[in-house]
Amino acid sequence: MAKLKFGLVGGGHGAFIGQVHRMAAELDGLAELVCGAFSADPVQSRSAGADIYHLPASRAYPSFSAMLQAEQQLPAAQRMDFVVIATPNHLHFPVAEEALRSGFHVMCDKPVTFSLQQALDLQELIQATKLTFGLTHNYTGYAMVREARELVRSGALGTIRRVNCEYLQGWLARSEADNKQAQWRTDPTRAGVAGCFGDIGSHAENLVSYVTGLDIAQVCADLTTFVDGRELDDDGNVLMRFHGGARGVISASQIALGKENDLRLQIFGTQAGLEWQQGDANSLVVRYADKPAAVHRAGGIGTTAASMAATRIPAGHPEGYLEAFAQLYKDFCLTLKGDPSAADFPTIVDGVRGMRFIEQVVASSKAGGQWLPFD
Amino acid sequence: MAKLKFGLVGGGHGAFIGQVHRMAAELDGLAELVCGAFSADPVQSRSAGADIYHLPASRAYPSFSAMLQAEQQLPAAQRMDFVVIATPNHLHFPVAEEALRSGFHVMCDKPVTFSLQQALDLQELIQATKLTFGLTHNYTGYAMVREARELVRSGALGTIRRVNCEYLQGWLARSEADNKQAQWRTDPTRAGVAGCFGDIGSHAENLVSYVTGLDIAQVCADLTTFVDGRELDDDGNVLMRFHGGARGVISASQIALGKENDLRLQIFGTQAGLEWQQGDANSLVVRYADKPAAVHRAGGIGTTAASMAATRIPAGHPEGYLEAFAQLYKDFCLTLKGDPSAADFPTIVDGVRGMRFIEQVVASSKAGGQWLPFD
Amino acid sequence: MAKLKFGLVGGGHGAFIGQVHRMAAELDGLAELVCGAFSADPVQSRSAGADIYHLPASRAYPSFSAMLQAEQQLPAAQRMDFVVIATPNHLHFPVAEEALRSGFHVMCDKPVTFSLQQALDLQELIQATKLTFGLTHNYTGYAMVREARELVRSGALGTIRRVNCEYLQGWLARSEADNKQAQWRTDPTRAGVAGCFGDIGSHAENLVSYVTGLDIAQVCADLTTFVDGRELDDDGNVLMRFHGGARGVISASQIALGKENDLRLQIFGTQAGLEWQQGDANSLVVRYADKPAAVHRAGGIGTTAASMAATRIPAGHPEGYLEAFAQLYKDFCLTLKGDPSAADFPTIVDGVRGMRFIEQVVASSKAGGQWLPFD
Amino acid sequence: MAKLKFGLVGGGHGAFIGQVHRMAAELDGLAELVCGAFSADPVQSRSAGADIYHLPASRAYPSFSAMLQAEQQLPAAQRMDFVVIATPNHLHFPVAEEALRSGFHVMCDKPVTFSLQQALDLQELIQATKLTFGLTHNYTGYAMVREARELVRSGALGTIRRVNCEYLQGWLARSEADNKQAQWRTDPTRAGVAGCFGDIGSHAENLVSYVTGLDIAQVCADLTTFVDGRELDDDGNVLMRFHGGARGVISASQIALGKENDLRLQIFGTQAGLEWQQGDANSLVVRYADKPAAVHRAGGIGTTAASMAATRIPAGHPEGYLEAFAQLYKDFCLTLKGDPSAADFPTIVDGVRGMRFIEQVVASSKAGGQWLPFD
Repeated sequence: MAKLKFGLVGGGHGAFIGQVHRMAAELDGLAELVCGAFSADPVQSRSAGADIYHLPASRAYPSFSAMLQAEQQLPAAQRMDFVVIATPNHLHFPVAEEALRSGFHVMCDKPVTFSLQQALDLQELIQATKLTFGLTHNYTGYAMVREARELVRSGALGTIRRVNCEYLQGWLARSEADNKQAQWRTDPTRAGVAGCFGDIGSHAENLVSYVTGLDIAQVCADLTTFVDGRELDDDGNVLMRFHGGARGVISASQIALGKENDLRLQIFGTQAGLEWQQGDANSLVVRYADKPAAVHRAGGIGTTAASMAATRIPAGHPEGYLEAFAQLYKDFCLTLKGDPSAADFPTIVDGVRGMRFIEQVVASSKAGGQWLPFD
Repeated sequence: MAKLKFGLVGGGHGAFIGQVHRMAAELDGLAELVCGAFSADPVQSRSAGADIYHLPASRAYPSFSAMLQAEQQLPAAQRMDFVVIATPNHLHFPVAEEALRSGFHVMCDKPVTFSLQQALDLQELIQATKLTFGLTHNYTGYAMVREARELVRSGALGTIRRVNCEYLQGWLARSEADNKQAQWRTDPTRAGVAGCFGDIGSHAENLVSYVTGLDIAQVCADLTTFVDGRELDDDGNVLMRFHGGARGVISASQIALGKENDLRLQIFGTQAGLEWQQGDANSLVVRYADKPAAVHRAGGIGTTAASMAATRIPAGHPEGYLEAFAQLYKDFCLTLKGDPSAADFPTIVDGVRGMRFIEQVVASSKAGGQWLPFD
Repeated sequence: MAKLKFGLVGGGHGAFIGQVHRMAAELDGLAELVCGAFSADPVQSRSAGADIYHLPASRAYPSFSAMLQAEQQLPAAQRMDFVVIATPNHLHFPVAEEALRSGFHVMCDKPVTFSLQQALDLQELIQATKLTFGLTHNYTGYAMVREARELVRSGALGTIRRVNCEYLQGWLARSEADNKQAQWRTDPTRAGVAGCFGDIGSHAENLVSYVTGLDIAQVCADLTTFVDGRELDDDGNVLMRFHGGARGVISASQIALGKENDLRLQIFGTQAGLEWQQGDANSLVVRYADKPAAVHRAGGIGTTAASMAATRIPAGHPEGYLEAFAQLYKDFCLTLKGDPSAADFPTIVDGVRGMRFIEQVVASSKAGGQWLPFD
Repeated sequence: MAKLKFGLVGGGHGAFIGQVHRMAAELDGLAELVCGAFSADPVQSRSAGADIYHLPASRAYPSFSAMLQAEQQLPAAQRMDFVVIATPNHLHFPVAEEALRSGFHVMCDKPVTFSLQQALDLQELIQATKLTFGLTHNYTGYAMVREARELVRSGALGTIRRVNCEYLQGWLARSEADNKQAQWRTDPTRAGVAGCFGDIGSHAENLVSYVTGLDIAQVCADLTTFVDGRELDDDGNVLMRFHGGARGVISASQIALGKENDLRLQIFGTQAGLEWQQGDANSLVVRYADKPAAVHRAGGIGTTAASMAATRIPAGHPEGYLEAFAQLYKDFCLTLKGDPSAADFPTIVDGVRGMRFIEQVVASSKAGGQWLPFD
């Protein structure tokens, strides 16, 4: 079975989320990047294609329209299957619309569009084209988030009463003059009607909806702009009333100085409560009325099939393990490519010392636990 | 710049570390798997190539020797650049030796060989061929492990006095009858002279050596086999005396019931102490004699260049984030490939609801914090 | 210098906070309980005095009025100096008023009175009598809460922008039929206008005010009663706007199933952020814009004089240590008093084994690290 | 029932453990300090009695012998019932011996004596006198340590295989010139044959023995003195073989820079594993082969009667709560005694503000969640 092929819109020099999309899309060996329109500037697009993505010049297109038109003409064996949209928000709709009209499936970064009206229009178009459209609310990919949803669905929590969700960041606590990521997120012509709540408040909402399955009935919000000269909110709290009677609160901030990406979800029902936080993403604490709390762990004993399916490493290997593993390959590859500064991977010297350790340890133990020289 | 190409030895059906090597090697877009000898059984090797790795049949070789011979004949633009060895320990040496003699670089799983003598022989061969040889002691790829080493090197700890390293697992607490991973690790004809200490005690030794830079002078070991009928150690403690006077202890176990991969390192010097654990891999606690403890975070403010270079996501995004992100792509790709059970990714419905959330939140806040209906 | 003497109102059989007041008041050797009116039922009051507090019958009064009148008549060397009020809320005002009018200082449980009007009246009376009145918002006694306030006062946080405070409990998640503690707290004739927010929301408010020094300008609240038949709120969220522009949110719940007393405070300023939680009460995390986060520890290096003054055990001994230590004394005393089931304290057998351990360990080490028999 | 009365030997100016014994002994209202011999210097003893313990001069004795003789002469209603020994190690035996011979029960600090031989002699004497002798290995008083022992006893762990115990401190990482606590602990004429292992290694041994019930068969130790000029060990690791086949390791250090009192115990059996650490003393993690880990909490649902009996505050109030509560009483009492710097307790101003908070919160919520002014 061949890999799926995809093209990327956005993700040029100075972006970070483009590389994240590429790594995530390719991680499981199911898809590979074959083309892109990485910048509105054709020269920049081409150099990003070569330098960042190792693509031939012919498939680093000068614009997303050019990409869509050209790829349509390619034979199926070469043509991309889907488009990944990793641009500022105001471009989500035009790119998605044209991609769908050109017959491509779409994976799009969030929030889905610049405005609610665009989202509704896009929904109609998707229904009409019958193509697949995905949205990267990436926190729903954590195994323990899926475990949480399964526990809710199974009735283990009883009826949900209270939901608390915090997403606190500090990276916009100060003026963002020199940060490309920050600039468009605080610009109402590119980000939309909300700043912090468009960027991360929307993640909190999605996480709450995903796990609880509850529908919001009413909101009461207090958004603030703390940094002088900024046009959009950089902080806020929202009270929520859900259909069925549950209550909730979302706190989101980009001026919570010192906080990295502190996403934290607590749900309380009539039978049990759940707590999950991104900082310990592999654990889900389940608290009961009548027995000690249980800690569900990604890939661990007693977890649901839904969460097992979202774990790619057998039980007990932590997330992040892959990146650490990958780091050695990165150092190794860069060394092979001639970068001497990258030679930071274990070598035969480590191997020899390691074998000596193993053999002397065994010898010491076999000798009744004697002290033996090592060198 | 083109990607490097590699072939994989091992990693067939029922293995897990093969896929980990593949994912890790490809993560940064620097290398791609082009061939493999995935099993000693040619039929199994071919089916693994197709099913797991999406390779053409021509490059799923019946044996590693066949692979090395065939790849040598290919034009450079197609030929693999390096070999990844992900087999049981007893095959590391023969595969590495033949690969090096065939002119290929090698990345090898640990422990490096079956015996110390083989490791020394391999060291000679590597020096003679001048090819690059890497060993996947993967824990040294963590950004905060590199941070720890940099702090030691910088003198921030003063002279090191004490080292504690624990690597506790529980997965072999019971007999391993039906677990392919367990079988070879407890078989002295495939694993070597040590079980637990070959498999994970060697990781602990490597981590200690990597971070501290100290040389072991003497060891005193007490290894045990707790599970009846097992031939190799499944647990042990080792006291160490280092050149220069420092002392240390390594505890490693595969019968520590309930422990996943609890790798924990503590180092104490005359000026400061360090603590790192895999369960919170993005944090490094640094304790001082004269001020509050500091928590260094992967990609965070005030960390060393060495650790920044081992972080592939900008400050504040946790490791594991990539896998969660990748999960959505996996679900998306499997859906495109026709698997309806995989349709677990956010869609336009989430997008519309998300935009409604953003707009109503902003409207509520702008109206002075009024309650507004959501639907 | 003699100890101060105090009388306790409330704290009879089935209460728990009375004993807490007694233990807390006596801990530092500055005060001792000499009398009380432990119940509205004179017989109950007397038996509580004897059984719980080891007081002579003459000083276990039938009512608080009787206590105040009788103690006034005693010579100064025997007379109580202050009154501790540990009753349901509706009695705080009448007891405090009569105690002050009788010339006694008062330490009162919270919330201070049944209504705001009573609180204002009490404030006038206190000012008129010039007696000392204290309120047991006990969380402000934690060393690290005081540290937090000192850091705010010192300007280390810059201008405060955001405050998050959660106080989540689960003990009232179900109907409280058989729990004396629960009954009065959910009874509007004894608790007052609020349930959860009178009981613990008020602690959250106090903690926020204590640490930040900010004044609340506006509140927007959403309180809920989840348990059928309950008359007062058992859950709620409150948005706050502070004078000066800071924003905040308090979440308090008594139906957060599985939560014990999860009190958590986060404060974010323009220069740094703080995080404290009761579950790790000895730590205060301080996050900065330009350097790694610091963990201030009770009694630890680099903490403020204010927090050192609130630590009664030298650096590094955790809170709770005292209770564990006390447990041995409790077991010892109960054994002396003839309770054989209490004989759970280390004895000479432990002492002999401990000395053998010390001596054999030293002998083994002196012999170069040899294995020595222990018995 | 009257309180028991006790006398304290040791605990004068500059000591800290004397006050800890006093607070712990009195916490539960079962005992009270009535006399002491607080220093070998009669003047110091008397001033400590007055300044620290608020005792009349007549019962602050010039020597422990004087105390024992004088107290024997007092009528039973005034005479002490037991003696608390909180002196350096070399005095434990002479004080205990004389106290027992004088007919008093004894509670003694650890290690029990200066040498094993003294411990054996003391054991004989205790058996002969039939008096009660307790030893303050205080960590066995934690509710969750008792829970751990109960779980072991119940068979929940199966057969124990491995034990890891660490007790790491950093306070002696440097020379102890000006620290009275440090001086005697590093002086072989007062501390005994071991330094670190006499002081805290012995706690680790006791904790292991208490929880596991295992008997040590053999030890292999490697003790070190890292600080120049120090005569006793300040660091060490000990391997242990237990009767029945279990293995263990104790690491104890007083030069582990930055560590406070990091006492950590892990036990692994054939059915389950346990983990407890003093830094989170109210939690006990229990890991199973076949279900998610459970977190037992002091006073919490599903814990054993043995641990409930060692919890003096109802479920969910953390240890340390008492000290925080006591802090307010301390401030209040010192204020009453005329110390204006101590006026750091909540007052009527907090009470009024708190009532306003409660009433406005309720009003806002009742008005449908409107914003209301606070002042």
